[in-house]
Amino acid sequence: MRFMEETIKKIGALDEHAISVARARQDILTKPAGSLGTLEGISQKVAGITGNVMPKMKDKLIITMAGDHGVTDDGVSAYPKEVTAQMVYNFLNGGAAINVLARHAGARVVIVDMGVAVDFTHEQLESKKIAYGTANMVKGPAMSYEDAVRSIEAGIEVFESEAKKGVDIVGVGDMGIGNTTPSSAIVAVITGEDVEKVTGRGTGIDDAGLEKKIGAIEEAIRVNKPNNKDAIDVLAKVGGFEIGGMAGVILAAASHRVPVVIDGFISGTAALVAYGIAPAVKDYMIAAHRSVERGHSVTLDYIGLKPLLDLDMRLGEGTGAALGISIVDAACKILGEMATFEDAGVSEKD
Amino acid sequence: MRFMEETIKKIGALDEHAISVARARQDILTKPAGSLGTLEGISQKVAGITGNVMPKMKDKLIITMAGDHGVTDDGVSAYPKEVTAQMVYNFLNGGAAINVLARHAGARVVIVDMGVAVDFTHEQLESKKIAYGTANMVKGPAMSYEDAVRSIEAGIEVFESEAKKGVDIVGVGDMGIGNTTPSSAIVAVITGEDVEKVTGRGTGIDDAGLEKKIGAIEEAIRVNKPNNKDAIDVLAKVGGFEIGGMAGVILAAASHRVPVVIDGFISGTAALVAYGIAPAVKDYMIAAHRSVERGHSVTLDYIGLKPLLDLDMRLGEGTGAALGISIVDAACKILGEMATFEDAGVSEKD
Repeated sequence: MRFMEETIKKIGALDEHAISVARARQDILTKPAGSLGTLEGISQKVAGITGNVMPKMKDKLIITMAGDHGVTDDGVSAYPKEVTAQMVYNFLNGGAAINVLARHAGARVVIVDMGVAVDFTHEQLESKKIAYGTANMVKGPAMSYEDAVRSIEAGIEVFESEAKKGVDIVGVGDMGIGNTTPSSAIVAVITGEDVEKVTGRGTGIDDAGLEKKIGAIEEAIRVNKPNNKDAIDVLAKVGGFEIGGMAGVILAAASHRVPVVIDGFISGTAALVAYGIAPAVKDYMIAAHRSVERGHSVTLDYIGLKPLLDLDMRLGEGTGAALGISIVDAACKILGEMATFEDAGVSEKD
Repeated sequence: MRFMEETIKKIGALDEHAISVARARQDILTKPAGSLGTLEGISQKVAGITGNVMPKMKDKLIITMAGDHGVTDDGVSAYPKEVTAQMVYNFLNGGAAINVLARHAGARVVIVDMGVAVDFTHEQLESKKIAYGTANMVKGPAMSYEDAVRSIEAGIEVFESEAKKGVDIVGVGDMGIGNTTPSSAIVAVITGEDVEKVTGRGTGIDDAGLEKKIGAIEEAIRVNKPNNKDAIDVLAKVGGFEIGGMAGVILAAASHRVPVVIDGFISGTAALVAYGIAPAVKDYMIAAHRSVERGHSVTLDYIGLKPLLDLDMRLGEGTGAALGISIVDAACKILGEMATFEDAGVSEKD
C-alpha cells in the first residue's frame, strides 16, 4: 500500500507552460492554425505531460497483462479458459495481433503474467502472478483487498523496471478469457450505470449467453456489495489481476510523466480504477479508440476522454493502443519536424 | 480523351475470390472473428483490389498536386495566392505536414505542378502545368473542356510513370490556395446539394468571407451552367487543374488494381469527378478521414465511402491520406502476419 501511495504522490499537474509553448509553435507551423485538429491537441497534451515542448516518441512500449477469471465457471465466455495461457504463448511467439500491430507502430511488447491459471516457463514472460486466476466473483470476492493492492503494485513495479530502459510512451493491453465480465461489473459499480447497459458480447456470446452474463454480474454485485467510493474494494470484489496490474502501470506512468495510451474496454476499466484511486491520472491518459463493447463509451465519458479512433475493434491485447501510439507519434512529429512560416518563407494569413 | 478512355476500360471488378479467401483467413487468425472490425474489412477490400489474398503494402506513395485558382481574385481565401507556390517549395524542402506524415507512414511523396501561377525550377518537382492557374470561374469557365481532359490525362501519366517504379498503395493530396471554392462548386453541382450546405471556411475565413465565398460559387454555377451529368464539364467550368489531376491518378490507380486513398475535401472532390466519369473506381477507393470541411461528408455519402479516421483535420496536402495509408498497411499486416489458431495451438470458440 505504501508503494502505491508513494507513486500516487508523485503524480503532478500538467506543465501548463510547455502546453502554451507547444500551442504557440503549432500556430507558426506552415499550415492554417488548427487545421490538423486532434493531432495538434494531442501534441500539446504530450508536451504538458512530459514537460518537453517538442516531445519525441522514440521508445514506445506496450504492456500486455494476462489473468484468468473464476467467473468463467459460470459460462460467461465464448472461449474456453485455457485460451488465456495459449494466447500468452502466442504473444511470446510473436503471432498475435498485438505483436503485428506493435511492430507496425515501432513499439516493443512486454507480456506480464498477472494471474494466469497455469505455470509458464518462458524467459520473455514477466511473472507477477498473484494467484492461479481469481475466485468466482459470483460466489464471493474475486480476490482479497491485499491482493488487489498487490496487483496494482505489481503493475507499478513492471513500469518502474521498464522505465529504467527508457519509455517515451506506454500503451496498456489485456488478455484474459472472461474478463469483459469483471470489467462490466467494475464499470457498473463505479459509474452507477445499469449492468445491462455496460455489458456486451465480449468475444462473441449469443443472446442466451449475454443474459447469463448479465445475471452473473448482477449476482456478483449483490453478493459482494463493492463500495463504489473505494476503487480498490471494487477491484478486489469484482475485478481481475490484469485489471489491477494495468491500473498500476497507469499510475506509475503518470508518476513518471509518461503518456499512457488506453486500449479498449478492459484497459478502460483499469483506467477507471486508476482514476478512482488518483483522479490526477486522467491528464496523463490518451484513449486510443472506442471499442464495440458498450461499456467502453460509458467509461470514457465518465473519465472524460475522447478516443482517437473508432474502428469497430473489440480485441484487446493493446491492439487499439498500438494504433493510438502511432497517431500520438505522428502528432509529436508534426510539432517537432514541421517548418515554421518564417523558416520556409511562406506568407501568413492576410 | 482516348488515353483516358483506355484507362477507364482497364478498370475491372474486384476479385471476389480473393476477398472470400481473405475473409476465410481472417476467421482462422488467433482472435475472435470480426474483432478487428474495420481493419478486417479493409484487408479484404485490398485483397479484392489487388487480387492478392495476402497483400503487402511495401511501396507506399503519396501524390500531391498543386494548382492556382483565378477565383482567388474574388477574395475567397484567408491566404494570399502566392502561398501555393511557397508551399510547393516547402514540400520540396521536406518541411510541410505532408512530408512529416508521409515519412511517418513510410511513403514517398511526389509533388506535381498541375497549374501553379509561377515557373518553378526544381528537379524534384514533376511538371504537368496546364496553365498559370485557372480562369476566374465567376466570370466564365475555369478552363476549357480540352484542358479538363488534359489535366485528367496528366494525372494518369503521373501514376503510370510511378507505377513503373512499383506502387502498392497510393494516396492523393492537394495544394492550391482557393481550392475549397471550386471543390464546393463541384460538390454542389454533382450531388445537387445547396451551395451553402457544402461550403466551409477553408483555411479559415470569417463570416463575411464565407458569405462572399458562397455568393461567388452560386454566381459561378449561374454563369457557367455546368452539366451535372458530365463530370468533365463540371471540372472544366467550376474545377481546378489539381482536382483534374487527382481524378486522373484515381482512375489510373484503379486501372492498375492499386488501392487509392482519398485525403480530405479537395481529393474527395476529385474522387467525385473520377466516380462521375467511371463509377467502377469506387471499389478501389479508401476514404482516409472525415474532413471538417462540411462538403466532405456530403461527398463521401454520395459516393458511399466510410472514412477510417475522424480527427477534425482540414489541411489537405495528403496529410489524412498518409495516416490512412498507415492504417491500411496495419490491416494488411494483420492478414499476412498473424498466426492461425492451428499454427499457434490455440483452442477455437466453444
